[in-house]
Amino acid sequence: MKLVTFKLLSNNEQNKLGALINGNTIVDLALEVSDMTQFFEQNCLDEAQKRLDTIQDQLNESIYDISDVVLQAPFPRPASLRDFGVFKTHMDAASRITGKEISPEWFKLPNYYRGSTSPASIAGHEAVVTWPNYTEKLDFELEWGVYIGKTGKNIPIEDAHEYIAGYTIYNDISARDIQFRHMTLSLGPAKGKDFDNSNIMGPCLVTPDEIGDPYDLKMTARVNGEVWSEGTTSDMYYSFEEMISFVSQSETLFPGEFLGSGTVGKGCGWELDRWIQPGDVIELEIENIGVLKNQIGQPEQNPAAWKEKV
Amino acid sequence: MKLVTFKLLSNNEQNKLGALINGNTIVDLALEVSDMTQFFEQNCLDEAQKRLDTIQDQLNESIYDISDVVLQAPFPRPASLRDFGVFKTHMDAASRITGKEISPEWFKLPNYYRGSTSPASIAGHEAVVTWPNYTEKLDFELEWGVYIGKTGKNIPIEDAHEYIAGYTIYNDISARDIQFRHMTLSLGPAKGKDFDNSNIMGPCLVTPDEIGDPYDLKMTARVNGEVWSEGTTSDMYYSFEEMISFVSQSETLFPGEFLGSGTVGKGCGWELDRWIQPGDVIELEIENIGVLKNQIGQPEQNPAAWKEKV
Repeated sequence: MKLVTFKLLSNNEQNKLGALINGNTIVDLALEVSDMTQFFEQNCLDEAQKRLDTIQDQLNESIYDISDVVLQAPFPRPASLRDFGVFKTHMDAASRITGKEISPEWFKLPNYYRGSTSPASIAGHEAVVTWPNYTEKLDFELEWGVYIGKTGKNIPIEDAHEYIAGYTIYNDISARDIQFRHMTLSLGPAKGKDFDNSNIMGPCLVTPDEIGDPYDLKMTARVNGEVWSEGTTSDMYYSFEEMISFVSQSETLFPGEFLGSGTVGKGCGWELDRWIQPGDVIELEIENIGVLKNQIGQPEQNPAAWKEKV
Repeated sequence: MKLVTFKLLSNNEQNKLGALINGNTIVDLALEVSDMTQFFEQNCLDEAQKRLDTIQDQLNESIYDISDVVLQAPFPRPASLRDFGVFKTHMDAASRITGKEISPEWFKLPNYYRGSTSPASIAGHEAVVTWPNYTEKLDFELEWGVYIGKTGKNIPIEDAHEYIAGYTIYNDISARDIQFRHMTLSLGPAKGKDFDNSNIMGPCLVTPDEIGDPYDLKMTARVNGEVWSEGTTSDMYYSFEEMISFVSQSETLFPGEFLGSGTVGKGCGWELDRWIQPGDVIELEIENIGVLKNQIGQPEQNPAAWKEKV
């Protein structure tokens, strides 16, 4: 099933849960729950499937054309956001650009940073990307990720697939200039990744039964219609099952937690030394999920902007 | 006012909001809101103060002795958790231990990582600290922090004090062996800080009117009653007002977001090369806030523990 969180363009109702069918039709699932976290907490997949089955013969108000709705991120507020970096091709490029060897730890343990789950930071398909007032080098990242579907702790790798609610595309918008300044402290990207509309997810959550082989999917990034990046999920050094098992050690995982793959090789402007500009349209496509499309906004103004301390 | 989130020992009711008076008495504020985030979203401080004023003459069921309640973290699920590292004395010690100079960026910009806000990770006064199954070097950290009280973006330093809901003590429990392995990737501490009951906050939230001069408070850590660390908040290189202004650039802040100071100089076992053990009792004391006391648990078992990939 392809699950979406959406609002109707025609009014300002609260978020609804829907299923995406036939590429561009949204079925209102009309469940008692209205939130993706509750959906997985309360095991609503069977009920949603029944709803979809009965709807096939009907033409009724539960079906919307995709052009009539505003898609939100599947979880408008994930329970957590961790972004890993499991594509060796991206690590090789980073090593080439920075002149530093890949840490031997990369090959032994999945590594990640935590990102913002603020409702202002998480955005969906067609949201306008914030250009922070403090960066001159904004970038996209071609990634994907999984949401956790049920609570668990100390999960063996062989059981970890049961904890995957589904898959989505992830555009991890990054301000490269300040990101690399922060990373000299080894604490992570900080304001390089933390700003409004910086974590873009969607267009839908694809449940495991519809993803095919998750480790053999084509990944493509287009800027203004031109292909900038092509890759494949088969290049992942760690599987999502390994990441889930790893992080669940002595740590309880809950429905709605997000684990991102990190950038595929050549999947960002930094690797290519090509830089997006205000007004550009970024499309990230992953086979069996869809296309996540967003336009880059104009640089924000901030009269009270931070002045460096020394 | 000293605000607390608590449960009664005598039953399993949901969390209540209270005020701590006379050192060990909890007043049930009996407001319509039952959650600290709503408390600040709906500006309940005046109403709470009225309640406290009228209660002084009464002896009624709204007052509990502190020994009859279980204190939770003031925000049992913060809207976000950022931990900075603004004590120069701690940076100097880290530099001495690692043999690496402090990055010049440290002096120019406040740096931070994001931590877990999971309800399993956030714990309060008297909670038992998890000893993760994958560490042999567990450590405490003597810190404090502020919660954001109202929504804002691009906040000037001179207005930032208006966004502080209050102050609390923070024990940032850390698994040093794996933390420093992760940090070779520059993405942050990862599983070095991410496990159940690793982010301990409390015992209460002290509102700005009761904190005195926030940048002249004594900080003390005791292990099994012995003083291990003494410091002062006057050593902070960045103020909370500077941190708030910095992170609010192009990023909306919401009530319940937490900003931690990082460790005061000598405020952890790593700096002292003294290591806590299962069963030890850690007390962190900060002037005008109180004492945050926790016992260290026994090492957890995990038959499915991660095996290194190479």
